Amino acid sequence: MVEINLKFPDGNVKSFQEGVTTKDVAESISISLAKKAVAGKLDGEFVGLTDQLLHDGAIEIVTKDSQEGLIVLWHTAAQVLASALHELYPDMKFGLGDVTEHGFYLDTDRQAGQIAEADFEKVTAKMQEIIKQKAEIKRVKMAKEDALKAVAGDKYQEELINDMDQAEVVLYQQGDFYNVYEGVTLLSAGDLKVFKLLSVAGAYWKGASSNPMLQRIYGTAFFKQKDLDAELVRQQEARERDHRVIGNNLDLFFVDPKVGAGLPYWMPNGATIRRVIERYIIDKEVAWGFQHVYTPVLANLDLYKTSGHWDHYREDMFPPMDMGDGEMLELRPMNCPSHIQIYKHHKRSYRDLPLRIAELGMMHRYEKSGALTGLSRVREMTLNDGHDFVSTEHIEDEIKTVVQLMTEVYNDFNITDFRFRLSLRDPKNTEKYFDDDEMWEKSQAKLKAAMDDLGLEYFEAEGEAAFYGPKIDVQTKTALGGEETLSTIQLDFLLPERFDLTYVGADGEEHRPVMVHRGIVSTMERFTAYLTEMYKGAFPTWLAPHQVSIIPVKNELHLDYVNQLRSELSAHGIRVTVDDRNEKMGYKIRQAQVNKIPYTLVIGDGEMKDGLVSVRRYGQDETTQMTKDEFKKLIFEDIETYSRQN
Amino acid sequence: MVEINLKFPDGNVKSFQEGVTTKDVAESISISLAKKAVAGKLDGEFVGLTDQLLHDGAIEIVTKDSQEGLIVLWHTAAQVLASALHELYPDMKFGLGDVTEHGFYLDTDRQAGQIAEADFEKVTAKMQEIIKQKAEIKRVKMAKEDALKAVAGDKYQEELINDMDQAEVVLYQQGDFYNVYEGVTLLSAGDLKVFKLLSVAGAYWKGASSNPMLQRIYGTAFFKQKDLDAELVRQQEARERDHRVIGNNLDLFFVDPKVGAGLPYWMPNGATIRRVIERYIIDKEVAWGFQHVYTPVLANLDLYKTSGHWDHYREDMFPPMDMGDGEMLELRPMNCPSHIQIYKHHKRSYRDLPLRIAELGMMHRYEKSGALTGLSRVREMTLNDGHDFVSTEHIEDEIKTVVQLMTEVYNDFNITDFRFRLSLRDPKNTEKYFDDDEMWEKSQAKLKAAMDDLGLEYFEAEGEAAFYGPKIDVQTKTALGGEETLSTIQLDFLLPERFDLTYVGADGEEHRPVMVHRGIVSTMERFTAYLTEMYKGAFPTWLAPHQVSIIPVKNELHLDYVNQLRSELSAHGIRVTVDDRNEKMGYKIRQAQVNKIPYTLVIGDGEMKDGLVSVRRYGQDETTQMTKDEFKKLIFEDIETYSRQN
Repeated sequence: MVEINLKFPDGNVKSFQEGVTTKDVAESISISLAKKAVAGKLDGEFVGLTDQLLHDGAIEIVTKDSQEGLIVLWHTAAQVLASALHELYPDMKFGLGDVTEHGFYLDTDRQAGQIAEADFEKVTAKMQEIIKQKAEIKRVKMAKEDALKAVAGDKYQEELINDMDQAEVVLYQQGDFYNVYEGVTLLSAGDLKVFKLLSVAGAYWKGASSNPMLQRIYGTAFFKQKDLDAELVRQQEARERDHRVIGNNLDLFFVDPKVGAGLPYWMPNGATIRRVIERYIIDKEVAWGFQHVYTPVLANLDLYKTSGHWDHYREDMFPPMDMGDGEMLELRPMNCPSHIQIYKHHKRSYRDLPLRIAELGMMHRYEKSGALTGLSRVREMTLNDGHDFVSTEHIEDEIKTVVQLMTEVYNDFNITDFRFRLSLRDPKNTEKYFDDDEMWEKSQAKLKAAMDDLGLEYFEAEGEAAFYGPKIDVQTKTALGGEETLSTIQLDFLLPERFDLTYVGADGEEHRPVMVHRGIVSTMERFTAYLTEMYKGAFPTWLAPHQVSIIPVKNELHLDYVNQLRSELSAHGIRVTVDDRNEKMGYKIRQAQVNKIPYTLVIGDGEMKDGLVSVRRYGQDETTQMTKDEFKKLIFEDIETYSRQN
Repeated sequence: MVEINLKFPDGNVKSFQEGVTTKDVAESISISLAKKAVAGKLDGEFVGLTDQLLHDGAIEIVTKDSQEGLIVLWHTAAQVLASALHELYPDMKFGLGDVTEHGFYLDTDRQAGQIAEADFEKVTAKMQEIIKQKAEIKRVKMAKEDALKAVAGDKYQEELINDMDQAEVVLYQQGDFYNVYEGVTLLSAGDLKVFKLLSVAGAYWKGASSNPMLQRIYGTAFFKQKDLDAELVRQQEARERDHRVIGNNLDLFFVDPKVGAGLPYWMPNGATIRRVIERYIIDKEVAWGFQHVYTPVLANLDLYKTSGHWDHYREDMFPPMDMGDGEMLELRPMNCPSHIQIYKHHKRSYRDLPLRIAELGMMHRYEKSGALTGLSRVREMTLNDGHDFVSTEHIEDEIKTVVQLMTEVYNDFNITDFRFRLSLRDPKNTEKYFDDDEMWEKSQAKLKAAMDDLGLEYFEAEGEAAFYGPKIDVQTKTALGGEETLSTIQLDFLLPERFDLTYVGADGEEHRPVMVHRGIVSTMERFTAYLTEMYKGAFPTWLAPHQVSIIPVKNELHLDYVNQLRSELSAHGIRVTVDDRNEKMGYKIRQAQVNKIPYTLVIGDGEMKDGLVSVRRYGQDETTQMTKDEFKKLIFEDIETYSRQN
């Protein structure tokens, strides 16, 4: 009789008979654990409760009250959904399904009539029926040819099976319905209690836009009703903040995968916001001693061979273009090599340092089309990028300068929900990094010293450094509750080596500069997405696409005066729209609120007679009368101080 | 005896014996013509004076006093140069040579020591020796294998011969020196009288950057000394205006073919000029009702199949990138299809028209690396592009609006040396154009009516229309005396068809809009090149990279006051440099002039005591003392009025 050794999370190792089930193992610990158990994990891989364990390894019992328990529940829900759909629509074909951060999805295709959200009631009822029957959910192993018979008529399932290398394959089975699906489920549909189908969206088969579009059904499930309720509230809030939803409502941008996945089109409203951000950050950086440049998005591939991107970053790069005669051009994945060209164009001396080069640099990164999201995950992006070339002695001063600039910018945008992360090398894994222990020790110490000197709080994160050096990241919260890096300051000792950068020191000798990579407001795409979600679309006046909406009480009486007022304001660069549609006053005022326009001015007889304006601020109910000059003073100050009233 | 018929430019046709030489033909007309004759042209192809004419055709006699006579002379000079170089450096290898707009060039390679301008005296003396000997310049036909022997040891010449398809090839021969060369020369080196070697520059063998770099020798020649003198004066003036020379002197931009041919890097000075232009034109266009957008440089290739660019414009496009799964992405050669996406994103009504979409749109066009020049011929460019979608009834109004906008912009930049060209369809060649006679008649009439209404002068140019419609071009003079199109307004009836664009009219029916393509200030690259040459680098204050240079008389006494003054001016967005180098005052003032900085301020004891500044304008000798406030008023007004004092 063969025994296997299983190591538990607390470090204990126990022996079991080979073929013991996950459930048996749980029971061997305690009955209460076995009751809560929904699956196991052997060496990090999910195993079902009745799966037999056949080799030594680290075992964990996955319980209902863990996030991993939810994953098992979500896979279960996806299988029950598949079974219900099959019963309702025997001609329906199935792609894959999987779990997401907050639930599950399943891809479907039905020529006779695609699934729609209107069908959810019927589908939900059928799922509940299956749950009531406590239908068994089984995984069965069968020969490939039998599997093909079991899914016969479903071309997607057939393709999935044909794609597999093994002679025997595993299918899920519920009654007479078989399907290919990865992920471990509960044993009975009866264990699925609380679930909800949420939405339907198009998704290409295997994520490729050249393939047919399937219907992806999203849903979620929980062990308790109150958890589902909380999740639905969270989703509602996220939807209200979602930059894709707001971007559509306010006509900021769109992406059309048919024309280009991950390639956003900025409509006039979105483009205005972006332009204001671009001018703001350029002016700010120039005032802080950054010299802005424009460098090409294309370069000979050799440049990225020298930089090392081609060796280490190729999978994120676009394919090179063969121009003939051996000339290969590449869309740049990063701007650093371009700024190095600017540095190298002149012989540099210590008097030139720190040399601060900045650019709104367009870059291209290849991402799978499935990973692309609105403005926040794109394939073409314009980064607020900068590279400071400094002497080793000035690293600390330079870091401080950039952190101070960053703080000022965050303040202007009213970004408060962020924290500094000091991203260090993983001390247990030093071979993953540029090999120079002394450099790492010194430069990590310098970053800390700079932050301490500025009196700023930060947390340390080992293993988050770049390959070429440590960094300071600014971590912000996203609307969906995640954390993302908005700004970064990175020390780089490697590229100056690779490109043999030098400067002549005060001693007349050649020295190697250090590069500081820094991004303040990230890419225009990501930052606009971030601001849209943070402001919930109610942009502060200085950023708002339309700053003032003027509504004449009666077009025939007041429009001339309104147009004159518009000209007066526009001449000062104020972005004004006039709502002269033949609609009711109340409707127009509501529309200005829906469009989140900071100021609505109503002009009638009274205002016209006395040169006044009636002003209503976004989100407020009251209207205030004031002179035109008072209003101008008000809005100019609002814009100049970047004030955020909403 | 076979006869051939030759048709003369006056229409007369004469018969000659087959094998008659060009010279014989000239003599048959008049002795004086024969004396002036340097070559002939048969059906547009150059033929030498002693070449035998073997078939019917249109004949012209090329004489000394024509531009084509110069071409023959320049080819002659290139051959004499080659022969002289061979005598001086028997190990020198030869690429090709050719004529340019103003002379000739010859490519050379010599491992033992490349040719340099310092060698020109020696080479010129050797050429004069050959000229004195009246050495014969022959073209000889020989079998390929003999030709290979004749050039043995010169790998470039061997490659040229091996590249040829024929069994027999033609080489030039002078004494024992043979070389491959296209172009007809005079018969004797003695006929070359007045010539000058001008410069040496690197040029890749066959124009491919993956090939070795050859040394290209430039020179020119004339029949009369006074013509050479005039040309040298013109070249000197062109050099002083050449944006590449000024761009280098003022550190505006550079192109490094090793990193990317035709892909300019804008240094901080050039980038500043470009940024001012970009903000100016965007603000101007927004004020004129254009809605600025940002659209991606990449799109699925299908977009350019729909637009027709892939069928008709492919040779100017970059190769598509295969992203896998059938997804092909293409760098856009034009922005029109992108703006059409913006139009199509909403259902449009007559109330939305004219819809004016504009962008600083980056585009990529493939040009052979040999055709690339500084900022004026590049592969990556950012166009001040715009597309107006209008109803047929409003074409004339829209044209007028754009022409007025254009005129205002030209006025602000002080561009006066331009003329309007009405570019019409070639009435003899209508099949070259979009097939709709009525459209052409009507729209050409509308363009004329618009120009007449505005009271603007223009000239008509048949055959200069675009395929899809007539246009108004603004033709400007380049520094080199050529003419180029800076701005354009084009009517387009075709793309709205291809993309099935519609709007709902006041009648509730769907109608087809017309597109007006318009560019006001061309690409940022070309416009900056144009302005650099027009202003000879002395940019007006509003555009100048550095507007003020402040020079402290003594750093230790005056630098604090100077830095404070700098801050005061910078706070108003003035671009100030402080020259605190340890150099003599006179040198610093000269440097400010060399760098063409509009204002130089000198600050010493007197200025400091009384809060004054001593102001010297670029190009002026006198210095004026004034208060700081007076100076601020002066420079603000200068900037606001776009004034051009230089």
